Amino acid sequence: MSDLKAKERPAGEKVISPAVIKRLPRYYRYLGDLLRNDVVRISSKELSRKMNVTASQIRQDLNNFGGFGQQGYGYNVEYLYNEIAKILGLNDRNNIIIIGAGNLGQALANNSDFIHNGFNIIGLFDVNPKVIGKKINGAEVYDIDRLEEFIAGHDVKIAALTLPKNSAVRIAGRLADLGVKAIWNFAPVDLNLPEDVIIENVHLSESIMTLSYRIHSSEI
Amino acid sequence: MSDLKAKERPAGEKVISPAVIKRLPRYYRYLGDLLRNDVVRISSKELSRKMNVTASQIRQDLNNFGGFGQQGYGYNVEYLYNEIAKILGLNDRNNIIIIGAGNLGQALANNSDFIHNGFNIIGLFDVNPKVIGKKINGAEVYDIDRLEEFIAGHDVKIAALTLPKNSAVRIAGRLADLGVKAIWNFAPVDLNLPEDVIIENVHLSESIMTLSYRIHSSEI
Repeated sequence: MSDLKAKERPAGEKVISPAVIKRLPRYYRYLGDLLRNDVVRISSKELSRKMNVTASQIRQDLNNFGGFGQQGYGYNVEYLYNEIAKILGLNDRNNIIIIGAGNLGQALANNSDFIHNGFNIIGLFDVNPKVIGKKINGAEVYDIDRLEEFIAGHDVKIAALTLPKNSAVRIAGRLADLGVKAIWNFAPVDLNLPEDVIIENVHLSESIMTLSYRIHSSEI
Repeated sequence: MSDLKAKERPAGEKVISPAVIKRLPRYYRYLGDLLRNDVVRISSKELSRKMNVTASQIRQDLNNFGGFGQQGYGYNVEYLYNEIAKILGLNDRNNIIIIGAGNLGQALANNSDFIHNGFNIIGLFDVNPKVIGKKINGAEVYDIDRLEEFIAGHDVKIAALTLPKNSAVRIAGRLADLGVKAIWNFAPVDLNLPEDVIIENVHLSESIMTLSYRIHSSEI
């Protein structure tokens, strides 16, 4: 692909800055809302007012993917929504397993926001006999002993870890050995895995501490 | 306070860059681990190896708060841990209420990582008669109709919102009217509240989309 010029590449094949990538899901969310409200097109100015960012940032961000807008017309909402979905990989089959079927694991399995956006929970795993065999939003909870067998038989894209720290470290290694290439980690620990494993952390205790800091420093 | 020189100010009164603040809870987590393993002191070099950041970043970050380290001695783990706790406001009474006592709300109430770090869940609220009256990890689930009465009688620092989008917007406004100054928002929506209300978002669907993007772009 390296001899293709940037503008000839299909959207999604360009290297994009992490800051832009972080903003894409937010564009996607706003465009989804507009679409559900039957808005056909929107100017960068209107979108910027809604999203509370500058119109020029919107234009710059979207220009990374070849623009999509037309001068004096604005953006076609449905088209832009679908293009961002492609860029985010939401048209692929993103099969997820959840390790840890406690409250948080069950909350993820029940979360319609991402289930309706290209993500598919195909199973949960736990050690607790009380939850093994249960169905959460259509997905079965399996004994963790069946992890190897399950992964061999399914196309698992992402494993979400809703486990205590020590089990998370252990299971993450096991998942990497089994060829799982993406971990959505909710455990309060930094996982050390081979470089080709992609890790996205959701550190809730760090988030609440940041909030605490902001309260504390606003009070001084 | 404005006539105090920076170095005379107690730790926590200096304006710190958001990037440094984002890293503080991670220092706190590592120092807590060291403390539990009875490590008395650590050099910035050792700490940097553990945390996978440069020693010079560690020194720079901690210099924002007056240093804490001694040349050739390193950092006193317990002292540094306690100082960071102060900076993060973890020694204050951080009373939290959780609005929405579903799986996610219950997961937060059961999360020992932050409960043991200066946060105190004093109540949950819901509309569902099936959960109202239940105790989650010692905290009672109240009828949402009792929100006003409860807030009048308690020092509520933070309200966590684990609600669908539309209810989150409505309840956030109600909380702001009641004088709650910090919202930990798990709903997939940007809340528009008066400027003095501090909002910390945990947008799970944006996090999973970022992960999806990274998988998708690594496959191309």
